[in-house]
Amino acid sequence: MAAPGAARPAPPLVDHHCHGVVRGELDAAAFEAYLTESDAPAAPGTSYFDTQLGFAVRRWCPPLLGLPPHCPPERYLARRRELGAAEVTRRLLRAAGITEFLVDTGLPGDLTGPRELAEAAGGTAREIVRLEHLAERIADTSRTTDSFLASLDGAVREAARTAAAFKSVAAYRHGLDLAPTPPAPAPLRAAADRWLTARATGDPGAARVADPVLLRHLLWAAVRTALPLQLHTGFGDPDLRLDRCDPLLLTDFVRAVRPTGCRLVLLHGYPYHRGAAYLAAVFPHVYADVGLALTHTGARAGAVLAEVLELAPFGKVLFSTDAHGLPELYVVGARLFLEALDTTSARWVRDGAWCAADAERVAALVAADNARRVYGRGGTVADGT
Amino acid sequence: MAAPGAARPAPPLVDHHCHGVVRGELDAAAFEAYLTESDAPAAPGTSYFDTQLGFAVRRWCPPLLGLPPHCPPERYLARRRELGAAEVTRRLLRAAGITEFLVDTGLPGDLTGPRELAEAAGGTAREIVRLEHLAERIADTSRTTDSFLASLDGAVREAARTAAAFKSVAAYRHGLDLAPTPPAPAPLRAAADRWLTARATGDPGAARVADPVLLRHLLWAAVRTALPLQLHTGFGDPDLRLDRCDPLLLTDFVRAVRPTGCRLVLLHGYPYHRGAAYLAAVFPHVYADVGLALTHTGARAGAVLAEVLELAPFGKVLFSTDAHGLPELYVVGARLFLEALDTTSARWVRDGAWCAADAERVAALVAADNARRVYGRGGTVADGT
Amino acid sequence: MAAPGAARPAPPLVDHHCHGVVRGELDAAAFEAYLTESDAPAAPGTSYFDTQLGFAVRRWCPPLLGLPPHCPPERYLARRRELGAAEVTRRLLRAAGITEFLVDTGLPGDLTGPRELAEAAGGTAREIVRLEHLAERIADTSRTTDSFLASLDGAVREAARTAAAFKSVAAYRHGLDLAPTPPAPAPLRAAADRWLTARATGDPGAARVADPVLLRHLLWAAVRTALPLQLHTGFGDPDLRLDRCDPLLLTDFVRAVRPTGCRLVLLHGYPYHRGAAYLAAVFPHVYADVGLALTHTGARAGAVLAEVLELAPFGKVLFSTDAHGLPELYVVGARLFLEALDTTSARWVRDGAWCAADAERVAALVAADNARRVYGRGGTVADGT
Repeated sequence: MAAPGAARPAPPLVDHHCHGVVRGELDAAAFEAYLTESDAPAAPGTSYFDTQLGFAVRRWCPPLLGLPPHCPPERYLARRRELGAAEVTRRLLRAAGITEFLVDTGLPGDLTGPRELAEAAGGTAREIVRLEHLAERIADTSRTTDSFLASLDGAVREAARTAAAFKSVAAYRHGLDLAPTPPAPAPLRAAADRWLTARATGDPGAARVADPVLLRHLLWAAVRTALPLQLHTGFGDPDLRLDRCDPLLLTDFVRAVRPTGCRLVLLHGYPYHRGAAYLAAVFPHVYADVGLALTHTGARAGAVLAEVLELAPFGKVLFSTDAHGLPELYVVGARLFLEALDTTSARWVRDGAWCAADAERVAALVAADNARRVYGRGGTVADGT
Repeated sequence: MAAPGAARPAPPLVDHHCHGVVRGELDAAAFEAYLTESDAPAAPGTSYFDTQLGFAVRRWCPPLLGLPPHCPPERYLARRRELGAAEVTRRLLRAAGITEFLVDTGLPGDLTGPRELAEAAGGTAREIVRLEHLAERIADTSRTTDSFLASLDGAVREAARTAAAFKSVAAYRHGLDLAPTPPAPAPLRAAADRWLTARATGDPGAARVADPVLLRHLLWAAVRTALPLQLHTGFGDPDLRLDRCDPLLLTDFVRAVRPTGCRLVLLHGYPYHRGAAYLAAVFPHVYADVGLALTHTGARAGAVLAEVLELAPFGKVLFSTDAHGLPELYVVGARLFLEALDTTSARWVRDGAWCAADAERVAALVAADNARRVYGRGGTVADGT
Repeated sequence: MAAPGAARPAPPLVDHHCHGVVRGELDAAAFEAYLTESDAPAAPGTSYFDTQLGFAVRRWCPPLLGLPPHCPPERYLARRRELGAAEVTRRLLRAAGITEFLVDTGLPGDLTGPRELAEAAGGTAREIVRLEHLAERIADTSRTTDSFLASLDGAVREAARTAAAFKSVAAYRHGLDLAPTPPAPAPLRAAADRWLTARATGDPGAARVADPVLLRHLLWAAVRTALPLQLHTGFGDPDLRLDRCDPLLLTDFVRAVRPTGCRLVLLHGYPYHRGAAYLAAVFPHVYADVGLALTHTGARAGAVLAEVLELAPFGKVLFSTDAHGLPELYVVGARLFLEALDTTSARWVRDGAWCAADAERVAALVAADNARRVYGRGGTVADGT
């Protein structure tokens, strides 16, 4: 994305947090469902296309499929069906300008895995291992509490050999107001017992791990591997209580982790992104993401990004799309980010607050260099797809 | 309000939350008192005219009374006295461009009722019934706890026949950190007993209903009528503790109400309006208001509105003035809203983020159509004035 | 600072909250440490020069030392060494445009005192007495709890004779979720006992006063003098938990202080500055500061200031730099403030929201007049330097 009137090329993008794309065709209702964090159809008389994200999709994606920007949703969806999901995915992913993907593989559904995503996009991919998903898979096959805990430890260590990072959704399962330290062995064993027993009785509420003691154990298991640990903070679907996802609730955990050297990456953060930026400013091992917040705020992405860039050191901010399901979300996440960064920094350069060389340097940091420093450049992908 | 250089007419406005206008003349101190949410005169050496709201009144209102914009307060007040309150009210209300008023009739003072307001404005009006006010009126005439509870239930059902909506100020009386479910009969009866007994002994602190059990009962009595329920959230006068008015504190209540189909309208919200917008985004039955926040932030109304429009679906945002006491506040609320929406969306259209047709459609939604969908078009007003 | 294209001179500045400047020479690492609120070196591969504050220093300061704006940090630091700390301090302080300094003398290190600072700057200075520092100095020399409490009371009264104000950092030591009222004599005595005993045993954790009972006693001792009381709120170094520094947590304390007439000045506030502005709007005795927040947000200072000016009455907002250690921070704090205010109000004037005369009047209020009204014009400085 060039500065107004200039020819500055877009920096390459490392998407440090995203998910897979739906493999099959989507009808109109299924497509619309991916435009919102809600778990329900839009209220009567309203549509999720009438959101900043909906407008952003209609801005950026129709031209990539040969249609005018802002064409009606129906026309766009018809064109999508005409081309077929595979061709649409290929076209959109190649247009997004992302060269490296770090893919959270812990979401359900028939989604592309990292390798398949990378191939469709013409880039490379590595895996982010979602801790809660890992624990649930192991619980599915563990016969005793002891074997569960042992298998879990082994699985975390094994995952750490190839994964780019771990991720926790403790925010969803309990909230971020967790005790900051690792649980002691006895309460950990008791919590695991309770959970596995509830699962054995078929309690549907026990399918997911939500006990705060177990969640803390997962966090610390990841911390000990010294891989970066991504933490969901801020908004998401209505499963969470947003006020319990304020990243500042993690302050004591951040302090407890500090001596270990493990780097913590605070995802999303909105509307508490200024707090996330504060933590990134005062704690050397904390980083802040600008993914989901930009995608969902569309025309306001520049304003939201600027708020993150108030306190966060420029070496601590990371681009992501948090794209999930629709290849459109990679395009929108990337375009909104590049435009937001370019427009914002160009204005600061014009006003004399920044110089042009710094603006270019900061763009490269946030777009890719910070992610490469935090996650390394990685190797091959362990991907069964 | 036309886009810069264009001739787009202002959409008609439905003001879904406002109060009456003072009937008599106001001296300078009384006028100034309506420019603030404070309960006290301005600090020595300062004036409530020196606020964004004060500047906005001086911008928009003097020209409607034949004076230049931004003329000194003294001159404006002199002109006001010269014309008389009735003429000023008529001129200002007719200039506001509001065609439908939903009037909260639960505030004290010699205020115009819905019908009188509508006639002065040349529009129509319906009533919003304030739950706490209703309970206090019934307590004034109830001799026993049983008769109080029975009369209250009857009064809520009766009010629901003609009112456009109910409103709760539980935020003021207790805060929004209420238990989410209806109270059980025994604690409800005990709470009503305590309150009526305290009132019978003349306890001045018991004039108002503030017991959280009673407040929850009122909320659920309204929910059961299936009329929309307006909830005060965010800033207001110093009676409230702002940090206990974060709309996110209502999350569990929102979840509990969800199966009933009752629509919840979160009023004001500032400075937690992004949280209100989030709730409107993920819960189909939640709506967000942009009233008081715009009026009181004046030159910043566009910035505040833009923050609401980050996450809130455009079919979920409702215009209001929250005007109270001064007819000036209808003018200011309407003008600030129209200008904020027009300027903001025009910029997005210019940048290519939105298309012009969408901008016009969103303006119509927020200005009136969303309110009509939520509250219906209503019938006659039950108004004793 | 002139409006674009105009010749409006900058108003004189009263810096109502700042600290001393380091007396000696600083190496690169020591200089960089003053660009952050962190207590640690920047993360590997990053620099605190790559922040809004770092960019702001490189914008405003090199030209004052004969270098081009935005020159590389190394070049700037070399020039600084070439000129020597004393000359750099003189040049920068004289260029800042501040005529009156209110200096918090409670920070450790070899810092200039008020008189020395004023002389270097060609202005005048008065002292702000930090309550916790005062208590710790008295504890150092008190042999009994009784003598400690008596000496403390005497020292507060004595300080009130010459100080411009008191300041509390209870936010750092405990958080602002303190009981709102003065402690009763018995728990006060017990808390003092505990603290002095812990100190006597050499407990390093007891060097600082952190007991909430003692902190409340200090607050109320200051309130009784009727001098203005400055309260740290919002962000600072990682000693504090930011979510416990929300100024709204002070609401009940604000209410309890109200009858005394003592004025409370909420420092910093970010990212809760809208809440601080709210308190300033509804409580006549509350004022809001825009110091640290502007310095650390650099290119975003205008946006942050505008958020404060949403609800805060213009007679209630006070300029400060919160400068500490580096003379650069006076320059940056002053320039960012003047530019932020000028740019923001010029835009509002251009849009018709404000008139030019009001903009000029508001600038004078925030830059100096409000501070003079709150703190008086003061006399001589009690300064041992």
